[in-house]
Amino acid sequence: MNFGFVTKDNMSLLTDLYELTMAQVYFKKGMNKNAIFDFYIRPAKNRSYFINAGLEQLVYYLLNIRFTEGHIQYLRSTGLFEEDFLSYLKNFRFTGNLYAVEEGEVIFPNEPVVQVEAPIIEAQIIETFVINTLQHPILVATKAMRAYSVARGTVLVDFGLRRAHGTDAGMKAARASYIGGFAGTSNVLAGKEYGIPVFGTMAHSFILAYRDEVEAFKDFTSVYPENSVLLVDTYDTIQGVYNAVKAIRELGLKHFKGIRIDSGDILTLSKKAREILDREGFNDAIIIVSGGINEYKIKQLLDAGAPVDGWGVGTELVVSADLPYLDCAYKLVEYDGRPVMKFSTKKKTLPYKKQIYRIEKNGILEKDIITVYNEEVKGGIPLLKQVIKNGELVTELPSLGQIRQKAINSFQKLPDELKSIEKTIQFLPEVSPEIVRTMEELERQYRGGR
Amino acid sequence: MNFGFVTKDNMSLLTDLYELTMAQVYFKKGMNKNAIFDFYIRPAKNRSYFINAGLEQLVYYLLNIRFTEGHIQYLRSTGLFEEDFLSYLKNFRFTGNLYAVEEGEVIFPNEPVVQVEAPIIEAQIIETFVINTLQHPILVATKAMRAYSVARGTVLVDFGLRRAHGTDAGMKAARASYIGGFAGTSNVLAGKEYGIPVFGTMAHSFILAYRDEVEAFKDFTSVYPENSVLLVDTYDTIQGVYNAVKAIRELGLKHFKGIRIDSGDILTLSKKAREILDREGFNDAIIIVSGGINEYKIKQLLDAGAPVDGWGVGTELVVSADLPYLDCAYKLVEYDGRPVMKFSTKKKTLPYKKQIYRIEKNGILEKDIITVYNEEVKGGIPLLKQVIKNGELVTELPSLGQIRQKAINSFQKLPDELKSIEKTIQFLPEVSPEIVRTMEELERQYRGGR
Repeated sequence: MNFGFVTKDNMSLLTDLYELTMAQVYFKKGMNKNAIFDFYIRPAKNRSYFINAGLEQLVYYLLNIRFTEGHIQYLRSTGLFEEDFLSYLKNFRFTGNLYAVEEGEVIFPNEPVVQVEAPIIEAQIIETFVINTLQHPILVATKAMRAYSVARGTVLVDFGLRRAHGTDAGMKAARASYIGGFAGTSNVLAGKEYGIPVFGTMAHSFILAYRDEVEAFKDFTSVYPENSVLLVDTYDTIQGVYNAVKAIRELGLKHFKGIRIDSGDILTLSKKAREILDREGFNDAIIIVSGGINEYKIKQLLDAGAPVDGWGVGTELVVSADLPYLDCAYKLVEYDGRPVMKFSTKKKTLPYKKQIYRIEKNGILEKDIITVYNEEVKGGIPLLKQVIKNGELVTELPSLGQIRQKAINSFQKLPDELKSIEKTIQFLPEVSPEIVRTMEELERQYRGGR
Repeated sequence: MNFGFVTKDNMSLLTDLYELTMAQVYFKKGMNKNAIFDFYIRPAKNRSYFINAGLEQLVYYLLNIRFTEGHIQYLRSTGLFEEDFLSYLKNFRFTGNLYAVEEGEVIFPNEPVVQVEAPIIEAQIIETFVINTLQHPILVATKAMRAYSVARGTVLVDFGLRRAHGTDAGMKAARASYIGGFAGTSNVLAGKEYGIPVFGTMAHSFILAYRDEVEAFKDFTSVYPENSVLLVDTYDTIQGVYNAVKAIRELGLKHFKGIRIDSGDILTLSKKAREILDREGFNDAIIIVSGGINEYKIKQLLDAGAPVDGWGVGTELVVSADLPYLDCAYKLVEYDGRPVMKFSTKKKTLPYKKQIYRIEKNGILEKDIITVYNEEVKGGIPLLKQVIKNGELVTELPSLGQIRQKAINSFQKLPDELKSIEKTIQFLPEVSPEIVRTMEELERQYRGGR
């Protein structure tokens, strides 16, 4: 029996086989010059912007990737690798450079959010993990920020662990949604590992285990007098609100934290619940709503005046239901000082080691420009910063709280039309004349030489 | 810096906070009688059947869940737990029973695929992990079987690791797609951990790193003469096919494994490529297609006569793109011998500890019937089998190969109309009269007592 956990000790094999077979060919042919790879997102039909996330996990991987004797044995057993290459892997380290946009920063399609510069064997072997590590956090941080952007100060909590795609997705979703403006998560391990605030209410099963809803509410509140959010929709939501009030009264309490509604017509139910709570003197009891919540429903309900104080956002957040994958890539753009590009249909890459400059005007983002890395753009803020140099960490990584603040600030600098959750604008970076010239030249060379 | 890996050592905290707060209330109130929880799927608009998967990982969890001193310390730091309950957690073991449908079996909505019977504190604490562990494997095994069902014997390989939602999803997708009829995966770690065959070709970056496509093909093939699938679409696909032929000729080889096409008009390109390969005497060179492949495209291309021998299926498989989450639940159905149910809108649960009987006729699945566990159905095959008894494994778990065969056999027994990938039929199990009567009685009691 084997769960198949991925850990620091085996993450180096969490890669596509071809990364290792290509590496062996490079190794055998003595072809290991400096390569530059870009990670970037392609345009998505329903996202105007993205929130960068996942960098800390990528850095962890690059600093710690090792091939152990057990890995080597398995690779040997495939019959695809020779001893000289396996010996090379035994001493494998990532010795290259990593340039990246900070976590939390707003990013756009086609921008080289992460740029790896290393001997090509190293830069190639890490490909699969790079994409795996960045894609899901970017999806979730972006989805979270969309909810945050319409939440008008109401509290958002990640309730998605159970519906995340496996254990790691649950962890990444908690971290990424916190970056995207959420207040916390229900995921206890994410609380422990990342220091994210943890939240929880109660389940329907708790109510069902009792013969009586009032008794269930009383028992829970007697253990958590300050911290009980009573789930009122197991049988009948409005009766549930009355039962909550009754339970609190019978316990002799003047206050309680609030109620949660997980089903039904939320607008009507939340208004009625608010009325009852206010009328009964529990003006400070909050109303939490969960159950199929997403940014569209939050906006619709708040626009309609639903008196909701907080949201448990689960499934649709953690799987990014309306965009469950990013069209993203990690592509070679320079080898041995030579700019390269791929010409296949609609999937052209931008050659060269590059920089992204952000131009702001009166505190509002005006445009991004992608240049060759040593070009200068007056007044432009360079977004790519060196994080790893020759295999060593050369910057202090920000705390999760700092990243979250960066995301909120960065979002606030967006022009209003980009902030909409309904309309999508393809806000693509400009490409510097030097890159355009090189692309034309490479295409000419290729078409000519064919 | 912290990746946040989930492992055997910390998986017990990968849970929603409320599982632990509810557990503390039960503990404080001395309420820990026998509970039955069902895990089941609710109907999905675009799936007629599902393939069960993920059970081995769930069993692993139940046998190994422990709370360590480090966990206890963190829980103490939240201020939500008292010492007597924390001491209880220190000695926590899952001591209950697990009844489950075998992995690989075809399953339908509303069926209690997994049934947990344990003191309620134990049965409650495991909730989040149960759902997290089962949902994604079922999604992917089902999506894989849909592809398998239209692949007409062509080979399917999981290429999705990079686009999976994190590390664990990449592992689960490799395992679940193999269960669903795939031949293997590109994921090396899944090959090592689960013994799944691993496959790989080459990347565009490999071609780009060379100045010349023919040279790239020659170098790769000289290292892997038996095992080179040459990627031909970096610049121009048809020219790429000619270049592959040229490379093989220049190496003096009579055979090579094949080519891969990753973009463009696959029908036209694969036909032209087949023509060229045949004309040049490479009739045994195979054509692999990848890039945005799903079951719909496989069917369409094969229907149109595309001469494709194998498919790299990535993103849409591993995120189950057209159904990125299951509406599924883990619900209390019996407590202390008393059947219970939830009445909230459209989300009724079936009370009681249950059994699922499958009725077949001439080797074809006719219907499933859900009964109370000790009812008998003549000629029905009971699907729920006891896997864990009093916290101990009591069956031998099947090998992954056996599970895969079970899935293929089980799929083949479906009536033809359920096999369609285009039309969806809601094929729901019958519910035995005893359960219906109980539901009516519970609803009457509740409405009466209100």
